[in-house]
Amino acid sequence: MAENQTTDHPGTCLLVGVLARYDPSWDSLDTRPLPQWYDDAKIGIFIHWGVFSVPSFGSEWFWELWKKAENPYYVNFMKENYPPNFSYQDFASQFTAEFFDPEEWTEVFNASGAQYIVLTSKHVEGYTLWPSSNSWNWNSMDVGPNRDLVGDLVSTLRRKAPHIHFGLYHSLYEWFNPLYLEDKANLFQTNDFVVSKTLPELYDIVNTYRPEIIWSDGDAEAPDWYWNTTIFLAWLFNDSPVKETVVVNDRWGMDIHCHHGSFYTCHDKYNPGTVQPFKWENCMPMDKGSWGYRRNAPLTDYLTIQEIITQVAETISCGGNILLNIGPTRDGRLPPIMEERLRQLGAWLGTNGGAIYGSRPWVHQNDSVTPGVWFTAKPGVTYAIVLSWPKNHSLLLASVAPTERTKIFLYGYDDMLEFKPGSKGMTVVFPDMAEVKGQWAWVLKMTGVNPAAPRR
Amino acid sequence: MAENQTTDHPGTCLLVGVLARYDPSWDSLDTRPLPQWYDDAKIGIFIHWGVFSVPSFGSEWFWELWKKAENPYYVNFMKENYPPNFSYQDFASQFTAEFFDPEEWTEVFNASGAQYIVLTSKHVEGYTLWPSSNSWNWNSMDVGPNRDLVGDLVSTLRRKAPHIHFGLYHSLYEWFNPLYLEDKANLFQTNDFVVSKTLPELYDIVNTYRPEIIWSDGDAEAPDWYWNTTIFLAWLFNDSPVKETVVVNDRWGMDIHCHHGSFYTCHDKYNPGTVQPFKWENCMPMDKGSWGYRRNAPLTDYLTIQEIITQVAETISCGGNILLNIGPTRDGRLPPIMEERLRQLGAWLGTNGGAIYGSRPWVHQNDSVTPGVWFTAKPGVTYAIVLSWPKNHSLLLASVAPTERTKIFLYGYDDMLEFKPGSKGMTVVFPDMAEVKGQWAWVLKMTGVNPAAPRR
Amino acid sequence: MAENQTTDHPGTCLLVGVLARYDPSWDSLDTRPLPQWYDDAKIGIFIHWGVFSVPSFGSEWFWELWKKAENPYYVNFMKENYPPNFSYQDFASQFTAEFFDPEEWTEVFNASGAQYIVLTSKHVEGYTLWPSSNSWNWNSMDVGPNRDLVGDLVSTLRRKAPHIHFGLYHSLYEWFNPLYLEDKANLFQTNDFVVSKTLPELYDIVNTYRPEIIWSDGDAEAPDWYWNTTIFLAWLFNDSPVKETVVVNDRWGMDIHCHHGSFYTCHDKYNPGTVQPFKWENCMPMDKGSWGYRRNAPLTDYLTIQEIITQVAETISCGGNILLNIGPTRDGRLPPIMEERLRQLGAWLGTNGGAIYGSRPWVHQNDSVTPGVWFTAKPGVTYAIVLSWPKNHSLLLASVAPTERTKIFLYGYDDMLEFKPGSKGMTVVFPDMAEVKGQWAWVLKMTGVNPAAPRR
Amino acid sequence: MAENQTTDHPGTCLLVGVLARYDPSWDSLDTRPLPQWYDDAKIGIFIHWGVFSVPSFGSEWFWELWKKAENPYYVNFMKENYPPNFSYQDFASQFTAEFFDPEEWTEVFNASGAQYIVLTSKHVEGYTLWPSSNSWNWNSMDVGPNRDLVGDLVSTLRRKAPHIHFGLYHSLYEWFNPLYLEDKANLFQTNDFVVSKTLPELYDIVNTYRPEIIWSDGDAEAPDWYWNTTIFLAWLFNDSPVKETVVVNDRWGMDIHCHHGSFYTCHDKYNPGTVQPFKWENCMPMDKGSWGYRRNAPLTDYLTIQEIITQVAETISCGGNILLNIGPTRDGRLPPIMEERLRQLGAWLGTNGGAIYGSRPWVHQNDSVTPGVWFTAKPGVTYAIVLSWPKNHSLLLASVAPTERTKIFLYGYDDMLEFKPGSKGMTVVFPDMAEVKGQWAWVLKMTGVNPAAPRR
Repeated sequence: MAENQTTDHPGTCLLVGVLARYDPSWDSLDTRPLPQWYDDAKIGIFIHWGVFSVPSFGSEWFWELWKKAENPYYVNFMKENYPPNFSYQDFASQFTAEFFDPEEWTEVFNASGAQYIVLTSKHVEGYTLWPSSNSWNWNSMDVGPNRDLVGDLVSTLRRKAPHIHFGLYHSLYEWFNPLYLEDKANLFQTNDFVVSKTLPELYDIVNTYRPEIIWSDGDAEAPDWYWNTTIFLAWLFNDSPVKETVVVNDRWGMDIHCHHGSFYTCHDKYNPGTVQPFKWENCMPMDKGSWGYRRNAPLTDYLTIQEIITQVAETISCGGNILLNIGPTRDGRLPPIMEERLRQLGAWLGTNGGAIYGSRPWVHQNDSVTPGVWFTAKPGVTYAIVLSWPKNHSLLLASVAPTERTKIFLYGYDDMLEFKPGSKGMTVVFPDMAEVKGQWAWVLKMTGVNPAAPRR
Repeated sequence: MAENQTTDHPGTCLLVGVLARYDPSWDSLDTRPLPQWYDDAKIGIFIHWGVFSVPSFGSEWFWELWKKAENPYYVNFMKENYPPNFSYQDFASQFTAEFFDPEEWTEVFNASGAQYIVLTSKHVEGYTLWPSSNSWNWNSMDVGPNRDLVGDLVSTLRRKAPHIHFGLYHSLYEWFNPLYLEDKANLFQTNDFVVSKTLPELYDIVNTYRPEIIWSDGDAEAPDWYWNTTIFLAWLFNDSPVKETVVVNDRWGMDIHCHHGSFYTCHDKYNPGTVQPFKWENCMPMDKGSWGYRRNAPLTDYLTIQEIITQVAETISCGGNILLNIGPTRDGRLPPIMEERLRQLGAWLGTNGGAIYGSRPWVHQNDSVTPGVWFTAKPGVTYAIVLSWPKNHSLLLASVAPTERTKIFLYGYDDMLEFKPGSKGMTVVFPDMAEVKGQWAWVLKMTGVNPAAPRR
Repeated sequence: MAENQTTDHPGTCLLVGVLARYDPSWDSLDTRPLPQWYDDAKIGIFIHWGVFSVPSFGSEWFWELWKKAENPYYVNFMKENYPPNFSYQDFASQFTAEFFDPEEWTEVFNASGAQYIVLTSKHVEGYTLWPSSNSWNWNSMDVGPNRDLVGDLVSTLRRKAPHIHFGLYHSLYEWFNPLYLEDKANLFQTNDFVVSKTLPELYDIVNTYRPEIIWSDGDAEAPDWYWNTTIFLAWLFNDSPVKETVVVNDRWGMDIHCHHGSFYTCHDKYNPGTVQPFKWENCMPMDKGSWGYRRNAPLTDYLTIQEIITQVAETISCGGNILLNIGPTRDGRLPPIMEERLRQLGAWLGTNGGAIYGSRPWVHQNDSVTPGVWFTAKPGVTYAIVLSWPKNHSLLLASVAPTERTKIFLYGYDDMLEFKPGSKGMTVVFPDMAEVKGQWAWVLKMTGVNPAAPRR
Repeated sequence: MAENQTTDHPGTCLLVGVLARYDPSWDSLDTRPLPQWYDDAKIGIFIHWGVFSVPSFGSEWFWELWKKAENPYYVNFMKENYPPNFSYQDFASQFTAEFFDPEEWTEVFNASGAQYIVLTSKHVEGYTLWPSSNSWNWNSMDVGPNRDLVGDLVSTLRRKAPHIHFGLYHSLYEWFNPLYLEDKANLFQTNDFVVSKTLPELYDIVNTYRPEIIWSDGDAEAPDWYWNTTIFLAWLFNDSPVKETVVVNDRWGMDIHCHHGSFYTCHDKYNPGTVQPFKWENCMPMDKGSWGYRRNAPLTDYLTIQEIITQVAETISCGGNILLNIGPTRDGRLPPIMEERLRQLGAWLGTNGGAIYGSRPWVHQNDSVTPGVWFTAKPGVTYAIVLSWPKNHSLLLASVAPTERTKIFLYGYDDMLEFKPGSKGMTVVFPDMAEVKGQWAWVLKMTGVNPAAPRR
């Protein structure tokens, strides 16, 4: 149950291209408005791809869980299937990506209705998906695919689907990088790792690939002054080739998470369930058990399309964006079950996207009486996302007050719907379900309505 | 459009356990009645698994297409991804099956509603999925999984889902077996291959695993007297441990196909579209492009659940069984998209299986006016499988004549349906779609109806 | 210490090309005279090559010792270096032979002074070094080298060094062949293995490669009637393409060893140290610890050239042939240390071969007083092989009685040597060592001498 | 033919442990005396080991010759034996070293008579044989052996053979390191590579393993100020844990080679044939075609023991040290042919080392008349190394003038030798060769002799 305390959402008063320069302080950086494209886009696809896609077992944290945590699930998997001296690095040569076809991926992304994608340029394993000079022999050009995976994807995407924004995930720390471990052992009083690895690579990906999102991660063990993140961000916002449009998340150092950045990703489960005072993003893996591809994921661990649409409805209603994660395989494929979900989502958005793209939270997030109804808004229009077909064709909307001007349409159905004002809100009469195009969830587009007073 | 010329279906007059012995002649073997379980079972799952599951590229005919046909698609794949001296046999060590869990498979098979499965004990590559003494170092115990795959599956299946019948596919010829090639070069005047490989292995699998289906294949290059198939079948029907219940298909030698066997698989596309004078089976791959797992199959090559149910309706109405094929992966998994389709089919059958299991063709196969309506029958009951929800809730059944006793029910809906006799047949009134459990296709259960006269 | 009881050596009365046919009985087969070439050749090279060359660890009995004997040395090696599911058969794909150059091998064999070679066409592992139709997917054409190793070597050898005879080792039994194990379990009352594997392959190699030696092995567990060896040998001696010249050893069934065959290999250590009543062969591995290549053999396990020449002297003096074994590597190389020994032997034979090739045992085998002196003979000539340079240039030959016609030459030195008759035999005066070509051992060629009476 | 112009060899006036500190200038660094141990040691073993030991084909320059030079010999080898996408880095996982036993190596080194060894801590491929923090995932701990190869060898060597000095080879540049390539593209105006890779690693190996030789290489493309070598050397000589005893070669930057350093390695063929004004070293590979192990090296490419001893004689006579190179295998073995040569050398040095260890060049290097005679000296003693046994026991030494006090001994023979003064030098009478222990070359130890006047 969620109530919006304020309509003053920061996303509604953006000024892009301000002339002032930002200082490398959070006070200054925080004054930068959120580029509007991001708040409008709503739906993104997260792509976890790396050497972990080779074992594709357990999770993308395979290396850490096997070697540092000595988790028996991973330890035994290795014992049973690999020689004793097999190292995580040995997996890299099997990261072949021979079926990786950026045009196919782009076609699927486009069909999904996503407006942006975020690719793991480098996960916590440290392996870079582009030919980094600072990651010699631990990048996709030197070992494995022998290919610039980031470059190949971004260039195809911009050519074939230029409306889709391109972002990059980047982990600040690396579990086993000895330079990081030394800095850490020195209580971060040294920063050899940052100087010779993190920062050069961050500048490199921005200058080379011009991502419009930097999705930072792996920050929490060290303070922001160790990572030099404010200096990087000041450059990113003042002088980088993406200074006008780039957005960043909030993981830039210990205690920064959930306090600074273009948008927040602060909640454990990513979906707070209420509208938030700051722009946020709900990143959620399609495979509930892993972000990276997991060969042995049972079907039941994949979100159904109903579950995905439920998350979409709740998240967009509460002001968040959705970043739906998929994990390609070591040989470069999008598993069909993931493609099926993406195309199902795209089919739903094709009919009902009017309630999603470019929308903002309404006064109420969900209906005060009928469960499974979530609202969004645009100027003059209120949308209700209805997750279950109403019993007896009759939907009570207690949080919506009709007026004389009220008109109600159902996406996927041509005629206007009838409604009856009631003691609480109104009751909308649904048509014959068999006449309505679409499935899984339905969207009412209402004009001339007001928020009903909150229940007490 | 199909009309059943006769109600005298061979499956309806079975006598199991006759005392007479069969001679090794087709005349004698053909007198054996079809064990009824098979005609009742209707829905089976075909499983193509073998060394071809390792490249999992193109099709399960990989070896032949690469090496003998020199198909450039395969030749180039090998050139681009493997060293020049890599042989097909080298794939075998990567057939690891580490995730093969017969209990998981059984659970999925059970959920799919299938009543039997047919596993490739040996495909045309000659590699056996059980430890065959006649296939030393080219079987699943010696190279690859180091495991009796046939045995592990059958024992689990019988323990966990004893109602599911177990069958084995077996290819008579082997593309590259030198003994076969020598016999063939000798115009089949020698039979070293049959004596030292085919026959011992056939007897072995029957005695060891007691399959209730022998799904023979790879017969067509040589006459039945080369294969010694009548002798084998006479033993199978007279003396084998499965003599009472076993069924065999019709691929037992050149010109035998479609003429002899317990059931036929004679048609190119497997689905003839009309009722057949002899029991037949529609085997169809879920991946339209391959029977074996194909890593790079695009989602569009997988049958949708609607396509599968359409095939089920047509096939069962015309007297066939469905053998829906899947291809597990080299590491022993059922790909989630396949599992999803199987579970969707199982959900549909859970509601509507009354029209399928144990049914027989009706007088008419499909409605003479309304497309997408297929009939099945049981004593006193006629079923109509309706592939599209009728417009305006109103379904014209021109091939069904109501009587005073007529009662019509819709699976997934509690109340009796109304209907109106018409100039042709009758019109059935469907309820509110939102009140009906189920999707994809709907089944009417009708009692007290007669076949309408054929249209002219 | 050895005394020859008789000069009636079977090798001295050969009749080649007799018209009579042999019965498949030992009585008949034993009447076949030894083809003289073999007794003249004296020096052969044994080549152990196969899948065991891949692990090249422990010995060529790797598979048996690892899997059946569960010898911890092998078990631990596998545990420490391979995944748990790695099978012996998986080694085969690493038997690549990419450096195998039959011309190089032939050049080395030629330089070694050997007059014949014996290659393991099939060791006890069952893997054939030629494309056997009866060993599908377990032969060098199908897995590993993708090449007919036997054929490539024999054709080059016959073209480049036609004087070198070519022989093939062949193991009758196979540790893990299930057909053999079944026959064995049946107490050899069945013979599926012999019929479908052993015999077809034996005929195949004889017809295809025309070997002049069949070096049989692996016979001892079963009687000769199980192996059908007398039938095979009757064919070999009567009708095969090598009937005139072929020789066979004595391992053709339980209790046959050391009793029947063209030559015997009866003694545990292969070198009996005394002259034998029947032609025999001393096969000895250059690596004292293994016949197959053993990567981790320490240098001390390789015979020194002095040890090899000592064996040559003792063996030839006692009527045997030497079959010096080497083990090529999995990638087709002759290890340099083996090549060095072979070339050293060839250098020695180049100077001293007169005492070896075509020789026969003398009345005495070694000197009755001076150790390290071994005799051979040809008509009218007696040779003394002197393993150590005599102290003070003075060699006492107690077993040789000089006459007035006595002339003594030293190979590698031009002038005749002086000698002094003594109470026992005579004393030969050696020249300045620095003037003599050669090293390791020296050979006296003596004419006009008699055997001294045996000491008492 | 060589004449020593001066007896003023820098090695004869060493002062070890001076108190003054060195400036990072060549003027200052050049004042450091050569630690005497190095000039006394004479015989070292060079060990080339690295990822190049895996292909062990062509030479240790495999990567460069394959990828940059596109040498067809290497390009074709890869095409014929590896998949197209196989990278050099993929070899690393096969660098397993499972047979690497530092105790065995130490035993062999000890038996060879070597007084020092030099191991490639990092060759031009950049892969480090120790767990370098600056070479993450490209070192022997992270990929391949999973072991500190440098550490394991040095610790065993110091425990088991403490008299053998331990040195490390280190390549300054790395063919494919992108940081190096960027610095080079910047005409060495940037030095990211030196700062983040070369220097940290140089300090690391000195501090961690305390090598007494730094055998630098790969310097010639860039000036010494790019490499910061004078700063490093000043630290090495002033403050490092090996400041007292360390020696360095002369490869520290463009134009430095052959001008600065503890000893020079300036000549193309490493053996100048004349005495040199500065201490030098003759590094020579035992395999004439490669420094790294080369699987397919023919036996003729290995130096014979005679060739090695000839090089030893010439080199020591001319004031050099010998650094005899071997190449271990990818699995950690010393090939037996290499071990045989090392043990042969050790056997020769065991008898004749008196002329080698601790010696200095004599006035004359080789005899003015008799070829194959080389001289060394110690106070009051002159040694003649005689490479061929003299004809007729009679050796003319034209460059040695006897005196009344002259005494001549032959190593391996007990009695004093006779000699006759002649018009030129003297003639030494050799004993019966068979009475002399040893082979390959002989050493005369002469006291009371003078240099004869140079011939004209």
